[in-house]
Amino acid sequence: MDDNNGAIFEQGSQSIKIPVPVYIRASASVVGTKEGQGPFGSLYDMVGVDDKFGCDTWEQAESTLQKEALQLAIGKAGLQKQDIRFLFAGDLLGQSIASSFGLGSFQIPLLGLYGACSTCGLSLTAAAVMIAGGMAQHAACVTSSHFASAEKEFRFPLGYGNQRPLSATWTVTGSGAFIVSSERSGSDRAMITGLTVGKIMDYGLKDSMNMGACMAPAAADTIYRHLCDFGRTPSDYDRIITGDLGSVGQKVLFDMMRERGMEIDKVHMDCGIEIYDQSQDAHAGGSGCGCSAVTLSAYILKQLEEGKWKRVLFVPTGALLSKTSFNEGQSIPGIAHGVELACCK
Amino acid sequence: MDDNNGAIFEQGSQSIKIPVPVYIRASASVVGTKEGQGPFGSLYDMVGVDDKFGCDTWEQAESTLQKEALQLAIGKAGLQKQDIRFLFAGDLLGQSIASSFGLGSFQIPLLGLYGACSTCGLSLTAAAVMIAGGMAQHAACVTSSHFASAEKEFRFPLGYGNQRPLSATWTVTGSGAFIVSSERSGSDRAMITGLTVGKIMDYGLKDSMNMGACMAPAAADTIYRHLCDFGRTPSDYDRIITGDLGSVGQKVLFDMMRERGMEIDKVHMDCGIEIYDQSQDAHAGGSGCGCSAVTLSAYILKQLEEGKWKRVLFVPTGALLSKTSFNEGQSIPGIAHGVELACCK
Repeated sequence: MDDNNGAIFEQGSQSIKIPVPVYIRASASVVGTKEGQGPFGSLYDMVGVDDKFGCDTWEQAESTLQKEALQLAIGKAGLQKQDIRFLFAGDLLGQSIASSFGLGSFQIPLLGLYGACSTCGLSLTAAAVMIAGGMAQHAACVTSSHFASAEKEFRFPLGYGNQRPLSATWTVTGSGAFIVSSERSGSDRAMITGLTVGKIMDYGLKDSMNMGACMAPAAADTIYRHLCDFGRTPSDYDRIITGDLGSVGQKVLFDMMRERGMEIDKVHMDCGIEIYDQSQDAHAGGSGCGCSAVTLSAYILKQLEEGKWKRVLFVPTGALLSKTSFNEGQSIPGIAHGVELACCK
Repeated sequence: MDDNNGAIFEQGSQSIKIPVPVYIRASASVVGTKEGQGPFGSLYDMVGVDDKFGCDTWEQAESTLQKEALQLAIGKAGLQKQDIRFLFAGDLLGQSIASSFGLGSFQIPLLGLYGACSTCGLSLTAAAVMIAGGMAQHAACVTSSHFASAEKEFRFPLGYGNQRPLSATWTVTGSGAFIVSSERSGSDRAMITGLTVGKIMDYGLKDSMNMGACMAPAAADTIYRHLCDFGRTPSDYDRIITGDLGSVGQKVLFDMMRERGMEIDKVHMDCGIEIYDQSQDAHAGGSGCGCSAVTLSAYILKQLEEGKWKRVLFVPTGALLSKTSFNEGQSIPGIAHGVELACCK
């Protein structure tokens, strides 16, 4: 099945094998101060000196992150904004306002997305489908999160100074932007070769301070379905990379994969675990749309570009809650979208 | 250009001419009591007797609308839920919780969308791209809004009993679901033949009680771009149908089209104006994702199915605000996605 060039999987499969090459031509990452002090600090394209990025509100700061990231990515691709035919973007804030106020000035036709912290995977999926279908030459994907706007949106305003349990993650202040193209530039960062679109998975968990556990079932399902659909084993990948399960969610994921008869421990990496080091007091790790997006741009694509990794499965994970659903006592369903990336060399 | 079979417009165009037939195989509409008493009352598939639809909260009621609409549409298409390869859905609530809690039980891979009240057009756009690209045989599109959950999300809780100005619209309680397919069934409702993806348009308006005016620039831009890209005039369409501009927004739209040298008055219809009659005290008209979705399913597709209309341009309109952006004094940008629909006969 793997070598069946051009085949798109049949009805019943969650996956799409991309029938023609789709390239990630360029990307950019813009982050806040805490991320800049983390292990990937030197790899980001831009690190803010002030988490408000010169704006009056946290929401405007997040919009600025997106604007800067997209501008940088377009420039690194050697393109102009009018070369980008469609834009795929979304964020965590209610009604995706970080995107609406960050991207308007580009005047690129926009397909707005919502996948919580899985949005980076969702945007690459939707863009790859459009490019592979021959309906655009270049598309851009943008997503973001901001610690302060997310705390206000989902939990408590910063001024309240509430205590966070050890299972809680720290929302990454950052935005990642990606230029996806049908044509080879010769300096492409990676190719998108397969997609596994996630389903909503709801195990009934209700603890918004332990989102890793809420999202782990979705990650396990998507990874399992991907491996089955493509007829592969975990060892066929240099890394299987989740978005923001953190240290608690990772344990749940390993258990759930073992229940399905698969051991992914040796190839697993979680962006949330890697993005901060132990001394940064982020508890279970980083989270937010920006977490997987900036890690993909700064670190994962670098490994693929340099040929250190040949094939990875990138699986950003999202927790589908709102403060309204949480306050009304609803559970926290998860979703995870899998994007298979390959080295261009 | 119009007759150039298989052509997809070039870089620089906002439009996609669908290269292969994409059918709307079936659809369904589920609405609340007020909509059931409106002009299209007898055309909806289901009218609730209680706007809470047997649920404890308004949000759960909205989720139920989506669930019922999708279930009905799948049944009317003569399909099972496992035949639907991908689901495209979104709604107005923060973090799209109406969709997350309404559609989980279907276990269909989900691409979540956010386009405010333009979501019906956005979902048909994304599904048509996937179907036309040969990556699915059947996909489903679902969107919804609910008067009570929207008032709580954007304005005031109902219990506050605030007065609404005459420029305000009434959020439609309703959900529309559509099954989009690559294969002809012989009883398809319409074909999707062209797409014009909207850009964010921000004229700096800030009045959330006059969203028609906020969205009119986006509608004008998308309609204008569509006509230019396809090389057509308004008279080439039986109707050019906006989502929820209402009576105030319609006037602005006509003025803006005239400024561009185009007169659309004779073929224009606005779902928000049509969905309630004057006696229903809805002020400027209906609005919400559900407004254009249920009107498309119940009325517009009926005209195309019966051959009364041959070609329409369906342009749902969205206002990209949140209560946070509004409270922080931001403007209300708009977006509008154009979907060209044709009679199958």
